[in-house]
Amino acid sequence: MTTIDPASVKALAFDVFGTVVDWRQSIIREGEALGRARNLAVDWARFADAWRGSYQPMLSRVRNGELPWTRLDDLHRMSLDHLLGEFGITGLDEAETDHLNRVWHRLDPWPDAVPGLTRLRRRFILATCSNGNVALIVNMARRAGLPWDAGLGAEVARHYKPQPEAYLVTVDLLGLRPDQCMMVAAHNGDLTAAAGCGLRTAFVPRPLEHGPGQTADLTATGNWDVVARDFEDLAARLGS
Amino acid sequence: MTTIDPASVKALAFDVFGTVVDWRQSIIREGEALGRARNLAVDWARFADAWRGSYQPMLSRVRNGELPWTRLDDLHRMSLDHLLGEFGITGLDEAETDHLNRVWHRLDPWPDAVPGLTRLRRRFILATCSNGNVALIVNMARRAGLPWDAGLGAEVARHYKPQPEAYLVTVDLLGLRPDQCMMVAAHNGDLTAAAGCGLRTAFVPRPLEHGPGQTADLTATGNWDVVARDFEDLAARLGS
Repeated sequence: MTTIDPASVKALAFDVFGTVVDWRQSIIREGEALGRARNLAVDWARFADAWRGSYQPMLSRVRNGELPWTRLDDLHRMSLDHLLGEFGITGLDEAETDHLNRVWHRLDPWPDAVPGLTRLRRRFILATCSNGNVALIVNMARRAGLPWDAGLGAEVARHYKPQPEAYLVTVDLLGLRPDQCMMVAAHNGDLTAAAGCGLRTAFVPRPLEHGPGQTADLTATGNWDVVARDFEDLAARLGS
Repeated sequence: MTTIDPASVKALAFDVFGTVVDWRQSIIREGEALGRARNLAVDWARFADAWRGSYQPMLSRVRNGELPWTRLDDLHRMSLDHLLGEFGITGLDEAETDHLNRVWHRLDPWPDAVPGLTRLRRRFILATCSNGNVALIVNMARRAGLPWDAGLGAEVARHYKPQPEAYLVTVDLLGLRPDQCMMVAAHNGDLTAAAGCGLRTAFVPRPLEHGPGQTADLTATGNWDVVARDFEDLAARLGS
């Protein structure tokens, strides 16, 4: 860790999926409820992992220009339509399929997220710098009580992380310099890209994001400005 | 007024300057404090009116392409630099001038704004659709306690109202159709443009926005979906 003066930081920019919310258990929870209601024999953990597994390949198709700009809701839906067949999930009408696709709007926060963010907001502007689209971030925040000051990231930049525009447009819309913003993420790669754009960095491990067998991002692998156990520890380390 | 089912409206999109906050009295308040501290003989009401008077001409220069996209903070500063000379305000260093320019981030809400928005937020997504830039909207909201779910409008659209893109990009980022969004404004012209884009409309008069001599926008001049006395009355009329 480097030494940083928290007073030099004006805003925290948060990765959301995995860092703030537990997408895997949330999808398993809704999937199991759907499975009981529809008598479906589906391994919902495998389903959640497969859906998230399609995420980076889909983003890559936008990043490399194979697809035009497409918001994450629509990329999720393209993956879902494929997975429904693969997992033998039948009988959902369009409204039900759209509702399932929007499970990404209903993800539950990690237990420390809301209390930690509430503490951090007293001192810092709290923004998202997420690949989630604005409506997804807004709906998630309303349901989960996430106290964002601004929901920014890929959609307003029309570039998916880790492309620099996603970070730099977020910083610019906040009216700040990159060194006045600290990226908070559970993923070392996200912080590498943010640091490359001049942002400060904080790593918060989420060792159960991918379930009990997770192998990546268990620890900080870069020289990040802050490494914290969770968001409450992050607040303490940043003096808020 | 037309008849509207509030359940068909998912989000309210608010004009901010004049509709939510009292820019004129806020600038007079800060100007008078500055005048006392610096022994300046300035008519701050005239100063506030002149600053706001430069607003539409500056926006027009962006809208007609004479200026490239320029955020409102920077347009305010261009006007301020001119007005400082015109009003004989001297002796401000760069930090003090920048602080004065950011008085637009420190505008006070009308008395009904926070309680009304707090009621409305229980039922509706609350967004701004403002010509103010994102940082201005974020800083104003943190100071005044305005409970926005999303700070949107001109800067994310890179078009100033009343250009259609400002409304349509706001609606699109919320993941909604225009008819699922209701524009709330104290200015009939803003509602005319929003209605032209397919949004629902609510007029809330602010007869003192321009001071005691105000002549425009004293009453609704269009067939708006809702006309309310203030934001609390708007909440009541929309069943929240």
